[in-house]
Amino acid sequence: MLIEVAGTGSVVWLEGLPGSGKTTLARQLADALGAAHRPVEVLDGDEVRRGLSPEIGFSREDRDRHARRVGYVANLLSRHGVTVIVALITPYESSRQAVRDLLGPRLLEVWLECPVDVCRARDPKGLYRKAQEGKLQQMTGVDDPFEIPTRPELVIHTGSRTVPQCLDLLREALDRRDSSSLPQGPG
Amino acid sequence: MLIEVAGTGSVVWLEGLPGSGKTTLARQLADALGAAHRPVEVLDGDEVRRGLSPEIGFSREDRDRHARRVGYVANLLSRHGVTVIVALITPYESSRQAVRDLLGPRLLEVWLECPVDVCRARDPKGLYRKAQEGKLQQMTGVDDPFEIPTRPELVIHTGSRTVPQCLDLLREALDRRDSSSLPQGPG
Repeated sequence: MLIEVAGTGSVVWLEGLPGSGKTTLARQLADALGAAHRPVEVLDGDEVRRGLSPEIGFSREDRDRHARRVGYVANLLSRHGVTVIVALITPYESSRQAVRDLLGPRLLEVWLECPVDVCRARDPKGLYRKAQEGKLQQMTGVDDPFEIPTRPELVIHTGSRTVPQCLDLLREALDRRDSSSLPQGPG
Repeated sequence: MLIEVAGTGSVVWLEGLPGSGKTTLARQLADALGAAHRPVEVLDGDEVRRGLSPEIGFSREDRDRHARRVGYVANLLSRHGVTVIVALITPYESSRQAVRDLLGPRLLEVWLECPVDVCRARDPKGLYRKAQEGKLQQMTGVDDPFEIPTRPELVIHTGSRTVPQCLDLLREALDRRDSSSLPQGPG
């Protein structure tokens, strides 16, 4: 079959606390792009951990290693015209910088900024409750740090916006990115 | 730009001893497919190790883990129509089976069967010499086992064939695979 592909795809990297909306927005953005017949792949934290890093934990070293690994995979896919949506806490600036070094202008780093109280109230996976009960350690936002991103292309305040509003912001940023800085094919 | 892509790509998995010709054939096959404007990616042992598994060693557990990880990445790429060529020793049947479980009919497992004496005489990376001098441990074919593949789709005797002959065999097998068992797009 014939489909239209760009020379390379963007990598939309959604970072933020557990409960900040990464998975929700990743899926909705993927659905929207898929409906427009754009090749798209979601690399979501938990899922991709099972396939790519089943053996590692949540230490600083392990998280950093995993983030770089996800960046490596995102790079391979994007080289073949796939728009990649990453949903990963990515709590450390060193990981973000490594990914930026690898992906260059293809990276669209998006910080889903959301107060931890709001994330805790949402608690879609029950992680905050588990951490509260002492059943979970090394939980970002509770007893593990989330370093404030210094160079995101976009910050979305997911605590005070609706999902459709957040999605619009994401799509606008992605459209701007795709129409400006990516190498284009001949037609 | 418009390019023709299949619904999914095959994964040509080249396995065999160090010096059996994996990298050489992977590159030549990739060149041939690229010249025919087919989307193709090579996941070559050493290179992909740096990006995907820089921290691991060469124990049975580490090798197996790495092979599964490469399989996971190959799966993602092939889902987007990329023909993936893996060049990896893959010494254990358990890893091969895990990859087969994941990829199903997209997998074209190819054993590059070559006598270890021939591999040692070639020694393109100087590994056999290093192992001989005691500077390298856990070297497949020297002090680490290579389990005979039980279910490869193709066996190529790279010790007694020229590179062009090997390439022809590979391309024939890939063409058969692509024209028969892959899900096809509407056009």
